[in-house]
Amino acid sequence: MLLNLLKPKFLLFAALFSVGFAANAIAQDPYHNQRQDWLKKAEDNKPQLSETDKYPVGLVKLEKDATAFQGWKASTVDSAGKLYNSSFKNQSGVIVDFGEHLTGYLTFTLKALKGTPDAPVRLKFTVGEVPSELALPFDPYKGELSRAWLQDEIVTVTTIPSPVTIPRRLAGRYVKIELLGTSSNFDFAIGSLEFKATTAVTAKPPLLASTTPKLIADIDRVGLNTLKECMQTVYEDGPKRDRRLWIGDLYLESLANQYSYQNNALTKRCFYLLAGLSDNDGILISNVFENPEPHAQAGSRLLDYCFLFNVALNEYVKATDDKQTGLDLWPVAKKQLDIARKYAGKDGMMDYIKAGKEWWVFFDWKDGLDKQASLQGITLYTLNQTYELAKLLGKEGDVSDIPALAKKLKSAAYKNLYNPKSGLFVSGANRQISYASQAWMVLSGVASKAQAQTALKAVTTVKDAVHPGAPYLYHYYVAALIESDLKNEAKEAVQNYWGGMVKKGADTFWEVYDPNDELKSPYGFYPVNSYCHAWSCTPVYFIRKYPEIFQR
Amino acid sequence: MLLNLLKPKFLLFAALFSVGFAANAIAQDPYHNQRQDWLKKAEDNKPQLSETDKYPVGLVKLEKDATAFQGWKASTVDSAGKLYNSSFKNQSGVIVDFGEHLTGYLTFTLKALKGTPDAPVRLKFTVGEVPSELALPFDPYKGELSRAWLQDEIVTVTTIPSPVTIPRRLAGRYVKIELLGTSSNFDFAIGSLEFKATTAVTAKPPLLASTTPKLIADIDRVGLNTLKECMQTVYEDGPKRDRRLWIGDLYLESLANQYSYQNNALTKRCFYLLAGLSDNDGILISNVFENPEPHAQAGSRLLDYCFLFNVALNEYVKATDDKQTGLDLWPVAKKQLDIARKYAGKDGMMDYIKAGKEWWVFFDWKDGLDKQASLQGITLYTLNQTYELAKLLGKEGDVSDIPALAKKLKSAAYKNLYNPKSGLFVSGANRQISYASQAWMVLSGVASKAQAQTALKAVTTVKDAVHPGAPYLYHYYVAALIESDLKNEAKEAVQNYWGGMVKKGADTFWEVYDPNDELKSPYGFYPVNSYCHAWSCTPVYFIRKYPEIFQR
Repeated sequence: MLLNLLKPKFLLFAALFSVGFAANAIAQDPYHNQRQDWLKKAEDNKPQLSETDKYPVGLVKLEKDATAFQGWKASTVDSAGKLYNSSFKNQSGVIVDFGEHLTGYLTFTLKALKGTPDAPVRLKFTVGEVPSELALPFDPYKGELSRAWLQDEIVTVTTIPSPVTIPRRLAGRYVKIELLGTSSNFDFAIGSLEFKATTAVTAKPPLLASTTPKLIADIDRVGLNTLKECMQTVYEDGPKRDRRLWIGDLYLESLANQYSYQNNALTKRCFYLLAGLSDNDGILISNVFENPEPHAQAGSRLLDYCFLFNVALNEYVKATDDKQTGLDLWPVAKKQLDIARKYAGKDGMMDYIKAGKEWWVFFDWKDGLDKQASLQGITLYTLNQTYELAKLLGKEGDVSDIPALAKKLKSAAYKNLYNPKSGLFVSGANRQISYASQAWMVLSGVASKAQAQTALKAVTTVKDAVHPGAPYLYHYYVAALIESDLKNEAKEAVQNYWGGMVKKGADTFWEVYDPNDELKSPYGFYPVNSYCHAWSCTPVYFIRKYPEIFQR
Repeated sequence: MLLNLLKPKFLLFAALFSVGFAANAIAQDPYHNQRQDWLKKAEDNKPQLSETDKYPVGLVKLEKDATAFQGWKASTVDSAGKLYNSSFKNQSGVIVDFGEHLTGYLTFTLKALKGTPDAPVRLKFTVGEVPSELALPFDPYKGELSRAWLQDEIVTVTTIPSPVTIPRRLAGRYVKIELLGTSSNFDFAIGSLEFKATTAVTAKPPLLASTTPKLIADIDRVGLNTLKECMQTVYEDGPKRDRRLWIGDLYLESLANQYSYQNNALTKRCFYLLAGLSDNDGILISNVFENPEPHAQAGSRLLDYCFLFNVALNEYVKATDDKQTGLDLWPVAKKQLDIARKYAGKDGMMDYIKAGKEWWVFFDWKDGLDKQASLQGITLYTLNQTYELAKLLGKEGDVSDIPALAKKLKSAAYKNLYNPKSGLFVSGANRQISYASQAWMVLSGVASKAQAQTALKAVTTVKDAVHPGAPYLYHYYVAALIESDLKNEAKEAVQNYWGGMVKKGADTFWEVYDPNDELKSPYGFYPVNSYCHAWSCTPVYFIRKYPEIFQR
């Protein structure tokens, strides 16, 4: 997900908020005793990754091509055999194509062709998910994220033909290999090159109906690949970057997984890991790391993601009937509701200004998006989903105030955020109209079906409406279309947006995609974008959950 | 040793010569049955390396200083503690000083100072034996040897604080660490940095006499360090470069070892390894590699080194009384004499022109050196030493032609290469006067003691005399001075030449050293020179074998 939003001011406010919670005596580490138990359950459910050896399928060259994605086209120029059969000295800069996106470890050997190797060989490997990563120079680096995310590794080979494995895990489809140093006394070729590809996926997903349109089948295939690549020992957001568990990605991945690979243990593991690493006051941290030991990104409290934990847990318990996990983690879900209680005003409106100062409130990669309506919507949605979970678990008594609070928020939203004249939901002092606001107002149930249809249709005609910035919000938009029974519109949105990536050659779905600006990057340098990103995988969920819409 | 002389033409001639030997039916792989046995004995004598953890002793800065070696001075600016106690973001480019030359593996950890590490860190480590390696940019690389010899390694650290070990073995005293990429969301420091230093040396050498002059004691200390660093699982020529066993280096190292660390197993191992990897016709290959399995540098036949195997073996058997090894390897020594027989003309002169076309004939790193006299001298020296070995082993009957051949070579040398008028030995059609020719004529016994003294004194006064190009030939020059009883001159040569390196701050003795040209490099780029080189370690041998000259 995003890194550069985690600015000191957020850390500061999060810390203050945390202190505030403690001072309010809501609870002093209410989970202290359970933490170790949760982390142990997370460990117990850690998947054994499957490992598959993958080999190059061809050699490609990159060409500038204005019609290709980001202006770079990769065309096959040779079979992979050329790599092994002729001097590497004449092949420096070769780009090897593995034919699909892979995540794992790259191993190679060199073999002498002539003479005895009498000096080390210096090679540079650059791994790319998309051609532009191999076409553009990385230095001098202008991006905002760590330069080290870019996957260029320099290797000194001291023994030939011993195998060398690049220590870092890599993700991508293409591998450029450059020769930076060798001796004139011998010649050599690449002896072997293989990618040990890892994933937590072991099952095959059900087949789609034979009536499924080609484009939808392609979108499903690319979505499945995206999900598979992100399913490692946690649901990662992206195997190239950031390589870790974020609650927002977990939610979308677990939905897609439920309708495809059905690795429930992985979902369960992620819930327990997040619970075990929640803040001392019981509030969840937005993202966690597994190594060298499980730990959270201290201070990274993201409001909407706390809520989505509850939503994801409810979906999981409903789908699996695993009430034991639901009961184990119920205290965590219950705790997140304090956020709603804290910011819900007497008028039933969430104090989005105060929340925005004290939290990282996300919703989308979109500068200028007003988040009042989205916050109101997700809060209401979360209250409803959590109450549904309470009922499933027989815990309504724990949250008996919630139905009334939800009712209050709903009325207030309708009163303050709905413009009956335009049929659109608005947000903030400037009454901004955005896809985000319509989507969350629909999902929250504020809008009736008729109102929802009107709003979702109308927003597409508003000139200045704030469009989604990334696939993540597109998910909620499509979900809202489906919720409103706008089947054709939902199908079209999936076909246009994710289908657009497919048509542009995506092997996996991208973290950021603006059909009108392929070079868009939240980080100032688009090759550092993730091009295999969990939050973009949800067409798998839509296509498979709603066959009547997508598979015909 | 040298790499760029190993040009195709040498390989070609070596191959032709090899075929010639076979055609002459001298023998068709006479060692076929013994090879595996020899290699097994080499393996049986492989030392268990000692490993010692070494830590930084300070931080240094480099300054341009015309009076410092190669123009760069390293001055301590901080204690090592600063590295660990403050942000590395403000220390990029820091140079860590380990206080001594080390060979082994570098391990480090990073530790977070602020925030949670949320991105990989990209670091560049550059290891240098001398300051110039850290001061000069390596790229664009203009040297003739592989760029990969230079010790700059780029490392991506994906997990903090897990330890990272740079896979490549490194050699040097200084480590520059540069930050190439990190995230603005956290801060970090170097948590630890250690060099796991390896050597085959386990014994302490005897103390020098208390009367030993300070400069001589310093030369001995630096020589011992040089030898220790080069003693790994073979006698390496240099731990930075070329990291392998060359016969010429083995000879000098085994001499120095005999008077210091006395690791006889290592000497024995190297003899067996060379024997086991000799060419199919029984001729030795000049250099061999240990990994991934023992193998020779195919085609690299170096005439003078074949002879020095015999000399080294004789010295070893004399010093250790290990006749079993002498007898085991006698067939190899005997075989090398065929080279003398082949090129010795009826007139008793070695056909140096033919030999020079068919072999790599080395003697020194010196362009323009005429090698006639040196070849005549080393051949005679080898015949005498080998016959001495034969007598020790009771094998005179195998080489009964040798005394007569030696006598013939000696007379011819005296007749053709000695100028009684000048008292100097000359070499080649142009009657070149060089240190090399005087040294080898003295060592061979062609000159009487009086003639030797005259020649060795006279050469220093000849304006155009060809001086030694590297420490390797300096060894033979000093040996000749001692042999001629020119004690003061021997001591002065050691004090001036090796003492010159000591005074310039050498931690270990250099591969190449011209007091008048510190930037000299046989490879077109002096940072790729080896600054810890086995063939420069022999003051240890001289100082300890001849205490009456050096230790008072």
